[in-house]
Amino acid sequence: MHTEKKLASASLESLYRIFTVPEAPESTLGRIDRNISRNLTAFLQEHIVAVEKDLEEIEEDFSDPHIPERPAFVSSHADFLLEKLVSQSVHTASPSFVGHMTTALPYFMLPLSKIMIALNQNLVKTETSKAFTPLERQVVGMLHQLIYQRDSDFYANWMHDSNHALGALGSGGTIANLTALWAARNNRFPADKGFEGVSREGMYGALHHYGFEGAAILASRRGHYSLGKASDVLGIGRNQLILVDTDDKNRMDPEALRRTCLRLRSRGICILSVVGIAGTTETGSVDPLDELAGLAQEFGSHFHVDAAWGGPTMFSRKYRSLMKGVQQADSVTIDAHKQLYVPLGVGMVLFKDPTMLNSIEHHAQYVIRKGSKDLGSSTLEGSRPGMAMLVYSGLKIIGRQGYELLINRGIELTAAFADMIRERDCFELITEPELNILTYRYVPSVVREALEYGDLESVEALNKGLNRITQYIQKAQRAQGRAFVSRTRLNPEIYNGEDVIVFRVVLANPLTTKEILKDILDEQETIADDVETLEVRNGLTKICETCFVERKSVL
Amino acid sequence: MHTEKKLASASLESLYRIFTVPEAPESTLGRIDRNISRNLTAFLQEHIVAVEKDLEEIEEDFSDPHIPERPAFVSSHADFLLEKLVSQSVHTASPSFVGHMTTALPYFMLPLSKIMIALNQNLVKTETSKAFTPLERQVVGMLHQLIYQRDSDFYANWMHDSNHALGALGSGGTIANLTALWAARNNRFPADKGFEGVSREGMYGALHHYGFEGAAILASRRGHYSLGKASDVLGIGRNQLILVDTDDKNRMDPEALRRTCLRLRSRGICILSVVGIAGTTETGSVDPLDELAGLAQEFGSHFHVDAAWGGPTMFSRKYRSLMKGVQQADSVTIDAHKQLYVPLGVGMVLFKDPTMLNSIEHHAQYVIRKGSKDLGSSTLEGSRPGMAMLVYSGLKIIGRQGYELLINRGIELTAAFADMIRERDCFELITEPELNILTYRYVPSVVREALEYGDLESVEALNKGLNRITQYIQKAQRAQGRAFVSRTRLNPEIYNGEDVIVFRVVLANPLTTKEILKDILDEQETIADDVETLEVRNGLTKICETCFVERKSVL
Repeated sequence: MHTEKKLASASLESLYRIFTVPEAPESTLGRIDRNISRNLTAFLQEHIVAVEKDLEEIEEDFSDPHIPERPAFVSSHADFLLEKLVSQSVHTASPSFVGHMTTALPYFMLPLSKIMIALNQNLVKTETSKAFTPLERQVVGMLHQLIYQRDSDFYANWMHDSNHALGALGSGGTIANLTALWAARNNRFPADKGFEGVSREGMYGALHHYGFEGAAILASRRGHYSLGKASDVLGIGRNQLILVDTDDKNRMDPEALRRTCLRLRSRGICILSVVGIAGTTETGSVDPLDELAGLAQEFGSHFHVDAAWGGPTMFSRKYRSLMKGVQQADSVTIDAHKQLYVPLGVGMVLFKDPTMLNSIEHHAQYVIRKGSKDLGSSTLEGSRPGMAMLVYSGLKIIGRQGYELLINRGIELTAAFADMIRERDCFELITEPELNILTYRYVPSVVREALEYGDLESVEALNKGLNRITQYIQKAQRAQGRAFVSRTRLNPEIYNGEDVIVFRVVLANPLTTKEILKDILDEQETIADDVETLEVRNGLTKICETCFVERKSVL
Repeated sequence: MHTEKKLASASLESLYRIFTVPEAPESTLGRIDRNISRNLTAFLQEHIVAVEKDLEEIEEDFSDPHIPERPAFVSSHADFLLEKLVSQSVHTASPSFVGHMTTALPYFMLPLSKIMIALNQNLVKTETSKAFTPLERQVVGMLHQLIYQRDSDFYANWMHDSNHALGALGSGGTIANLTALWAARNNRFPADKGFEGVSREGMYGALHHYGFEGAAILASRRGHYSLGKASDVLGIGRNQLILVDTDDKNRMDPEALRRTCLRLRSRGICILSVVGIAGTTETGSVDPLDELAGLAQEFGSHFHVDAAWGGPTMFSRKYRSLMKGVQQADSVTIDAHKQLYVPLGVGMVLFKDPTMLNSIEHHAQYVIRKGSKDLGSSTLEGSRPGMAMLVYSGLKIIGRQGYELLINRGIELTAAFADMIRERDCFELITEPELNILTYRYVPSVVREALEYGDLESVEALNKGLNRITQYIQKAQRAQGRAFVSRTRLNPEIYNGEDVIVFRVVLANPLTTKEILKDILDEQETIADDVETLEVRNGLTKICETCFVERKSVL
């Protein structure tokens, strides 16, 4: 008993120690810190994307559901993390990791994040964040200015106003889109005679009161899956997310939008929001925002632009015209952990009208009281870290000109990559890049010819085979770990809307070069010769021969 | 023109540099890093909570809405942050910061966070997180085991199962509560003959199909404001968040719950979820979870427990009985950035039944495909950082015994603080602590007597005056910056439900001592003598004198 008590008191002392600032740089923690830095530097200097190891095998190291009884040494735990976790993580900053939107970070983010972590400010209220609150409001103001370009008076009036917010920071684009549509919904169904508003009475009461059969959100087929989630969460229903047809460049067709709106209206359905995409996740396409804005206005709908990816194109004087019409949006989503090059997770939604967020305002007795400057009164999330500081640091250190260089380089490198793909006779460019994303697939030249003149049935069979090969190449390349491109499924018009599996490439890492892209294509060509694809390729050749014979007899 | 081009190309080069790993520790970035560390160490060693400076004054440094044109040096930006931001932030780790749930961090979190930031893994999918995905699943399993204590087979079956999840990590308790209620809603209104489920058809269709007049969420008056937000967001409506009466210990009254359920049922309202609170934000009270579980079952309702604060009490063999019944919950929220001592922002919701989260499942073509182990298919958020690594590190390094020591110390120090308050004749303990939160207020002894025997009108007048004084003291103490307690408004039964403003103290920092608490009370007593409160106090004395005269005449 006595020993146990001693043990407990000894541990309590060591607990105090772990909560106390280590003073000497030569402390154990100082040594661990340097060891971690060295190891991370080595890891990040590698150009390998990931070491080949099955997830199932990795799971063995992370399978014990029991929280250990006894405390462990920080040093041995750090060693475990470096050996089992860091070595088996994905090198998202590698210049040959071109498959997703998670990309490299400027290295100054590392020392600066230390400020954020160490201070552990909570942005829900000024009492736990103080200067971080005006800083976050400034960041929101800066991005608002980037999009809407209002004058200085506007920002002097609204940026730090305790009863308004020009936008809301959150953990990412999904929360931003959800917040935008939440505000749109609440503004569309406000309090009225005999009705306290959708916020208080819910969707059932709102549709009942306003006499609608439903409420719809309209986006193109290329919209992000967060829009489906938002429709579900908001009680609107995924069926009410109406996917509007796109043109052959994956952009929403305004005429199709108009037809859809008219059809919905005639069925008594409220057109809650039109959502334009500025940089679709799969193809980087930008909807015709100005035309969409006009139609949204015509049908009395909120106009939201999901510019999670493409927003920072506004930094570029050269390419900002691609975003034409964005400033007409009622709300705009921008992700900071994408093309603002800030660590995960931080995104934001901006509102044209400073009163718009009031429709989701909420208060409590102990925080976010009415009239306070607490940011928590207009965010979906509650407690939140001071990520705004890192967004701010990016804006200040890189500057508009720096971001423009990054944006321009990405767009131009992607155009060059499209040329490289076109120059090879075993690849087919599926989507022309508009921003810095493109898709393509593996198509041997013999098949390509047959794809053009084959009958519907043959083309379908060819595409099925090509899908298998492209998927095989993508997985094999990922497993080899030298480079990573992602894959998705599109339904291009030229193939009558058939399922077409494509490689998807996102070029946002400034260290990615043409040489690296060449290597990626070379590796894909090599993989295509694997024995595993042989049978499929033989099958394709046979189909092509038949097509060729048929064609000859026709000619 | 030539110069401009040269400039641009020079900048591009310097941009490559900022994305390149700095090799030498003697690099500029290395020096900046050490400077930041030194500065942070100095800041964190100060025991001052915040420097007295008006928010309006701070705003002046953060008021320019224009993104600077030109890039800036990291060093000068870092200096700016240290001078203008760090110095004006709140020292939430100070042992005398006892006002909110944002508290100290173990220092090992700093070097370990570097791993998270540098690797920048995105947990939405394994392609951008690899080993981080099994690690996160293990963390969810560990906390699930802490609450539900299922056997090893259960976790071997479910923890890494690609079609199921035992819970969902997110940015905090608000997202966790929202996710729980979202799943509860979708499970309550599933697909049925002629109905595709609330997820697809929305709340209007769901209530219509199942023939309800509404759907209610029931929680006590002390429930967190995130429940109101969730009711709003989910299309249920804030009016359908029914606040059930509490007993004199701020715990939901099961009899009141039963009466409310019966009343709602008779009105044709679906009882969607009963929410029990384990550690209310304002008073740290724990609802009678086992009784609530029984009632939820009786009324066919989901039973959610918001243990954002109190969850880690389960680490304590000595006090875990306070959480009796929690393992009967269908879902439980735990915040990691609260009593797991992890940096902001990370929280989670755990589900008893591994199939429950399937009701909110979603997929896309390029990620979170069906059958993948991608965590994004069952989270509200999309892209998310690898915060699970820090939760994991806390669990491993501190261990169950370490967390038990922290929990026990907090509960016992709060009990001791309650005694200290009772021993002074100018404070009144308003809520007895159950966990490590209590509330009290300033009440001079002469007023105390009159509060007991005064008539209703006098008591009301006295409370109004006391509210003004308590609020004044709280604000003045906050402004002085040596210590911070928060304040809230309660409606205690002994004062007939009148508004009573109280100090609120949360004791979770292991470095907070009885001496520090004594100093806080001393400072409050001193502030109470300020000339600003004199008039109010004189008014109170007059009321007391009248009461005294009246009482004498009665006796």
